[in-house]
Amino acid sequence: MTAHISHSDLATADVDRYMQHLGQQAREATTRLRRADTAAKNAALHAMAERLQQARVDILAANAADLARGRDAGLDAALLDRLALDDARLDAMVEGLAQVAALPDPVGEIDGLRSRPSGIQVGQMRVPLGVIGIIYESRPNVTLEAASLCLKSGNACILRGGSEARDSNAAIAECLYAGLEAAGLPAGAVQVVATTDRAAVGRLIAMPEYVDVIIPRGGKSLIERITREARVPVIKHLDGVCHVYVDATADLDKALAIAVNAKTHRYGTCNTMETLLVDAPLAEALLPRLAEAYAAHGVELRGCERTRAVLEKVGEASEADWVAEYLAPILAVRVVDGIEAAMAHIERYGSGHTDAIVTEHYGLARRFLAEVDSSSVMVNASTRFADGFEYGLGAEIGISTDRLHVRGPVGLEGLTTRKYVVLGDGQVRR
Amino acid sequence: MTAHISHSDLATADVDRYMQHLGQQAREATTRLRRADTAAKNAALHAMAERLQQARVDILAANAADLARGRDAGLDAALLDRLALDDARLDAMVEGLAQVAALPDPVGEIDGLRSRPSGIQVGQMRVPLGVIGIIYESRPNVTLEAASLCLKSGNACILRGGSEARDSNAAIAECLYAGLEAAGLPAGAVQVVATTDRAAVGRLIAMPEYVDVIIPRGGKSLIERITREARVPVIKHLDGVCHVYVDATADLDKALAIAVNAKTHRYGTCNTMETLLVDAPLAEALLPRLAEAYAAHGVELRGCERTRAVLEKVGEASEADWVAEYLAPILAVRVVDGIEAAMAHIERYGSGHTDAIVTEHYGLARRFLAEVDSSSVMVNASTRFADGFEYGLGAEIGISTDRLHVRGPVGLEGLTTRKYVVLGDGQVRR
Repeated sequence: MTAHISHSDLATADVDRYMQHLGQQAREATTRLRRADTAAKNAALHAMAERLQQARVDILAANAADLARGRDAGLDAALLDRLALDDARLDAMVEGLAQVAALPDPVGEIDGLRSRPSGIQVGQMRVPLGVIGIIYESRPNVTLEAASLCLKSGNACILRGGSEARDSNAAIAECLYAGLEAAGLPAGAVQVVATTDRAAVGRLIAMPEYVDVIIPRGGKSLIERITREARVPVIKHLDGVCHVYVDATADLDKALAIAVNAKTHRYGTCNTMETLLVDAPLAEALLPRLAEAYAAHGVELRGCERTRAVLEKVGEASEADWVAEYLAPILAVRVVDGIEAAMAHIERYGSGHTDAIVTEHYGLARRFLAEVDSSSVMVNASTRFADGFEYGLGAEIGISTDRLHVRGPVGLEGLTTRKYVVLGDGQVRR
Repeated sequence: MTAHISHSDLATADVDRYMQHLGQQAREATTRLRRADTAAKNAALHAMAERLQQARVDILAANAADLARGRDAGLDAALLDRLALDDARLDAMVEGLAQVAALPDPVGEIDGLRSRPSGIQVGQMRVPLGVIGIIYESRPNVTLEAASLCLKSGNACILRGGSEARDSNAAIAECLYAGLEAAGLPAGAVQVVATTDRAAVGRLIAMPEYVDVIIPRGGKSLIERITREARVPVIKHLDGVCHVYVDATADLDKALAIAVNAKTHRYGTCNTMETLLVDAPLAEALLPRLAEAYAAHGVELRGCERTRAVLEKVGEASEADWVAEYLAPILAVRVVDGIEAAMAHIERYGSGHTDAIVTEHYGLARRFLAEVDSSSVMVNASTRFADGFEYGLGAEIGISTDRLHVRGPVGLEGLTTRKYVVLGDGQVRR
């Protein structure tokens, strides 16, 4: 087992060769990870949790160093908050490892095994993707989440966190490595990049021989750059410009509850509603009640002309508002003529993340579900439900707004692929 | 409905703008294709078949022109054969359309709809990928196959065939367009690129705003170039360096039948065995019988040292032979020590396409299935079964040697993706 490289070793090392070394170690680990049984993977997860408990003091000290450096560098309060660890957050991290260990192992599951006229049986077996590179920003708990989900799904991973969390990530990494070793799994199974050199990212996304897929987690500009420059497939999450369309047949109380929840439950999440579409016949009845509810939450409304005919005090929405992902207590509101106009608006301005209809009309519900091309499409439910835990995936490494491989919340299954298995008894092709 | 552009219109047109026009038309068509019901798609397929019957004389005349041009250009006999159409091949194309029409429509299928503690129901609905670009070489029947599979799965497609099949493809395209029109589907649903300008390919693979995925079908160099330069995901098929490993417990008759079939059933296919691995204890009993059988088929053997100790007349295999995709009556043979050595050989030299074990040992069969990382893994069956029809997919647009999205034979399901659907009754997130 090759030892992990520490910060100090790397100070003089060449980043290219270092990243190649990580890639080789990860690729080599895939063979053993493919054959690791569920018990071994769970043993590693539990051992990691134990080490994390024991290393509390060290991790909090490392985190304090990161925070001090961050404050000196003038990081803003929101970023410092994401970076900060405390006992409660460490408890949640330990608990997260136990939860992932408790999840069913998707690897080895065989679907649809069927007999064919030739006499063979054919099915599809879930297998790991291989090596996953994950690039993320300040939150150090992502190191643990990503490592545990990749390990449970039988993948090797190379994790590149933000430079501001350098010391925290290094301290957490030691626990991960110790857990792997305790369970007899290869060191290449989980590797935390031990350099803050930006060239490491460029190298990580351009090693198709060692890395099978990249999952970037972070701001839109980071993700766009990685997607542009990656030489391997990327599972990504871009914007969440989510809509709720309230149809004329909607139950007003449900509409009100959903529209308020979808906007105000949390402002900064990707599944928060950013534009409300109201069917014209309902505008006079619904909009004043909504405006009152939003005012109570301090939500600013920006409306189309027809909205402003009903709500006179509301500001004017421009083209930019229809594509805005506010992530703030601001909501764009548009009055539309029926489901066709609503779906046309969503198709033109939406980001294909999550869109909901509120309706009591069976046929319209069915059409909206079939025709709206988003990763989650809902009837009479808040867009805030678009989440791996709410969907029952047990965990979530992110939400994919891509079309290929996996759409929507990505859990363990999204980190696997399926190969064909053929069972025969000497059959040959005629 | 915008009319399709003919060769003559395009003679002076700007390729970039032309490809962008095709992309826009395709993207626009996706909205109507998403809502097209199975009956409408099948009606278009049947109408295409009817037009193809009526246009036989024109298509054969166009094909004759392609063939004459090909002969003048000095194309080799194999290429001319792939290019050639006759009544039997046209019959097969017409029949192929009927078969695709008869396949179940994957679009709209909902898997795993489950109730969650919050009261919502969550499931996953199959939906089209969007716009598929297909780049292929000389065989004009691919135009029809690709168009029918994309249409049935609700995708718009842009098809770019080989320049040597220009006139044949244009004649077939007219039938496709007429079929779409007869069924009231948009012209943008199927578009055959009407220029042989190579710049069209470069443009097609670099329009992420209009094209969701590229499927290249052709030689390895074409596919490698497209993968390198594409700015959208590619579902690709690279080499098929397939193995059969005969374990010491194998039934000799089954081993013989499978090894002979896997090599000699067809030489030029990607699922043909290229390397045979024989467990050492079996070498003396099996190799002479195999050598005799291969000699009867005119297959040249190239062996490792231990193979040559048993079969003295066999030539020596070099490193290059272990990675060779011969596509010819040549077979590399290696004697190995047990399943570990066999799997290590496959991992090092294989291409992850299709690999089989011949064994009567339950535990070894189970290990081989779980641990060999190929798109198809088989026990006691010929590698030649790795095929969409043999697997019961009903049709095949190719075989993916990629890991993400789809592995192995790609049928209608591989041309779709799944979005989440959420059914509620007014639920909000707590």
